[in-house]
Amino acid sequence: MSETMHPIDRQAHNDLVAAAYEARGFLPDEAADAAEMAAAATWHGNRTHNALKALHLDDLFGSKAGGCVPGAEIEVLDTRFKASEIWNSNRKLGQSVAKRGMARAMELADEFGVGMVSVDNAFHYLWGGGYVIEAAKKGYIAYTNCTAALAEVVPFMGKTPTLGTNPHSWGFPTTEAIGFPIAIDWATSTLAMGRVQQLAREGKELPPNAAVDANGQFTTDPSKVVALVPFGAHKGYGMSLINEIVAAFIGGSLPTHRGRKAPTADEKSTPSFFFQIIHPDAISGGAFACGRDQKANVKAVIENILGNGNEKCMLPGQPEAEAAKRSEEAGGLLFSEAELKELNEIAAGLGREPLKPM
Amino acid sequence: MSETMHPIDRQAHNDLVAAAYEARGFLPDEAADAAEMAAAATWHGNRTHNALKALHLDDLFGSKAGGCVPGAEIEVLDTRFKASEIWNSNRKLGQSVAKRGMARAMELADEFGVGMVSVDNAFHYLWGGGYVIEAAKKGYIAYTNCTAALAEVVPFMGKTPTLGTNPHSWGFPTTEAIGFPIAIDWATSTLAMGRVQQLAREGKELPPNAAVDANGQFTTDPSKVVALVPFGAHKGYGMSLINEIVAAFIGGSLPTHRGRKAPTADEKSTPSFFFQIIHPDAISGGAFACGRDQKANVKAVIENILGNGNEKCMLPGQPEAEAAKRSEEAGGLLFSEAELKELNEIAAGLGREPLKPM
Repeated sequence: MSETMHPIDRQAHNDLVAAAYEARGFLPDEAADAAEMAAAATWHGNRTHNALKALHLDDLFGSKAGGCVPGAEIEVLDTRFKASEIWNSNRKLGQSVAKRGMARAMELADEFGVGMVSVDNAFHYLWGGGYVIEAAKKGYIAYTNCTAALAEVVPFMGKTPTLGTNPHSWGFPTTEAIGFPIAIDWATSTLAMGRVQQLAREGKELPPNAAVDANGQFTTDPSKVVALVPFGAHKGYGMSLINEIVAAFIGGSLPTHRGRKAPTADEKSTPSFFFQIIHPDAISGGAFACGRDQKANVKAVIENILGNGNEKCMLPGQPEAEAAKRSEEAGGLLFSEAELKELNEIAAGLGREPLKPM
Repeated sequence: MSETMHPIDRQAHNDLVAAAYEARGFLPDEAADAAEMAAAATWHGNRTHNALKALHLDDLFGSKAGGCVPGAEIEVLDTRFKASEIWNSNRKLGQSVAKRGMARAMELADEFGVGMVSVDNAFHYLWGGGYVIEAAKKGYIAYTNCTAALAEVVPFMGKTPTLGTNPHSWGFPTTEAIGFPIAIDWATSTLAMGRVQQLAREGKELPPNAAVDANGQFTTDPSKVVALVPFGAHKGYGMSLINEIVAAFIGGSLPTHRGRKAPTADEKSTPSFFFQIIHPDAISGGAFACGRDQKANVKAVIENILGNGNEKCMLPGQPEAEAAKRSEEAGGLLFSEAELKELNEIAAGLGREPLKPM
């Protein structure tokens, strides 16, 4: 790494983040969930969905704006379907809802092979990758998508941002096969808005053709960005639409009203979540070549893909696994100078001692 | 359309295609399934996965090569998971397996909210879009992926093709909302190899940066293409990996051995299928804004996305729906001069009368 990173004790970080959440009225267990998921992002090298982003989201859309309700109770709705649950989360903190949603989907998958939890009236869950990596480490094939808080993405061949950045996250239980879970996790925009904010914070430029300014022209200046474009032309556009359509089936309202403080008339402003877990035994035919078991077969397939001259290719989830190793070696969470400064402004605002590098 | 298209009676087409399959030893019901799915592709304007492609696949990998076994029986494996089935299809014709897999997944979804069928020892099912469009018309959210017959795609940042073109297909039951099912259906390569073959047949060039020649250099000449690249850089690469990893969990073997006539030692050469159906009621929170029901909510969300200056954007599935309308107006399947010529060479080979435009 070219940038100097400061190791911060994980517990000290979590205590600060939890205190910031409790100061906003969240219950201790909600604050602990928020701190845990922020730490998970930083631990895995995700610098766009860390504690700063989480608190920034709460400032913009959350407990002050009415988008998130501290202490809200999840209501499990009646359904005749045995492997699927539908929750009204009543705008409860997204991290707490997502942790429980994944846990419940795992229980359903244990019995049915596949389990789903769909969530209406949600609030941002921060980083989908954190939940699928955790589930994959427990041995499950995990998937989640959600609608992003704001319509910031222009449909393919369109002019106006009417889609969220709408991320998808998949995790696969490949730790025994290759040492870490394969985790495929990205926004369906060319960049996440969190990445734009990170580049702005660090005084860097965007790649070309990823974002447009107020006149609808492509810009590489992060401070001028008003909208993003989907990755991969019509294919990424389709991937973004999936989240909107699934959300529309669950109970989400018009994307251009989402995340707004005063949505028009009776439109809803909440995002939706979808969680799905598949038990790997539930898709196993058991007849692997050359006497392999399922894990050895997965390992052989991955080695085949990354062999034959492709040895320098990365696997999705590998950067996160390498970052986790660096965190482990440093003994804590690695923050840049600018990030640490912002965290310590939060500490000062709470009348707390600043976080000190270990 | 700038190209002259000839309308061919659907039944006459199906009779020819079924005869071609029966001449290869397939049972009448298998031959009928093959004809039906080829007709569905052409009906929906899909020119890369029509009857010519289906028979070409059988020539290359199928009943002559041993990749496909006419009359094979599907074996439903024992499982303790109630919403998931695992099938050994024993290399039965893919179209027959896929039709049954989707039908069984719909039954499971009716009871459990979600149903999955995973298939080991498969043979190419032609066009995933055909199955998800059909399921979506019946009111279900449908998904399928499979591993493509050959490793033709170079991993992101790699040199050697070790991935299949590995398509994903999603269908959404939006006919009542917007007049047709939204169908998101594409290969994870920038182009499908079927599209390369179509361009070669029509003497046209490829777009830039989509395919490489024998030296690993990008080429726009379809006759020089030896490998494709994933769409959308690392994101499309991740989408392609999903199919390989799911197949590896099911029972698929090394991608570079897949589709080969004489795989090394005991490696398997068969692709794998994954089918999943979700009942839309199983993800409905029931609390749609402004008194809408679920269908009206989906319609409102789509209108919001395609409003606000985005009126010229297309929805995935719209080109297929418009092609179906043209087919309906023409009263039959629309083939180009070159396609009709090839079909009639097949007819001549079977000693049958040529297909004549209506």
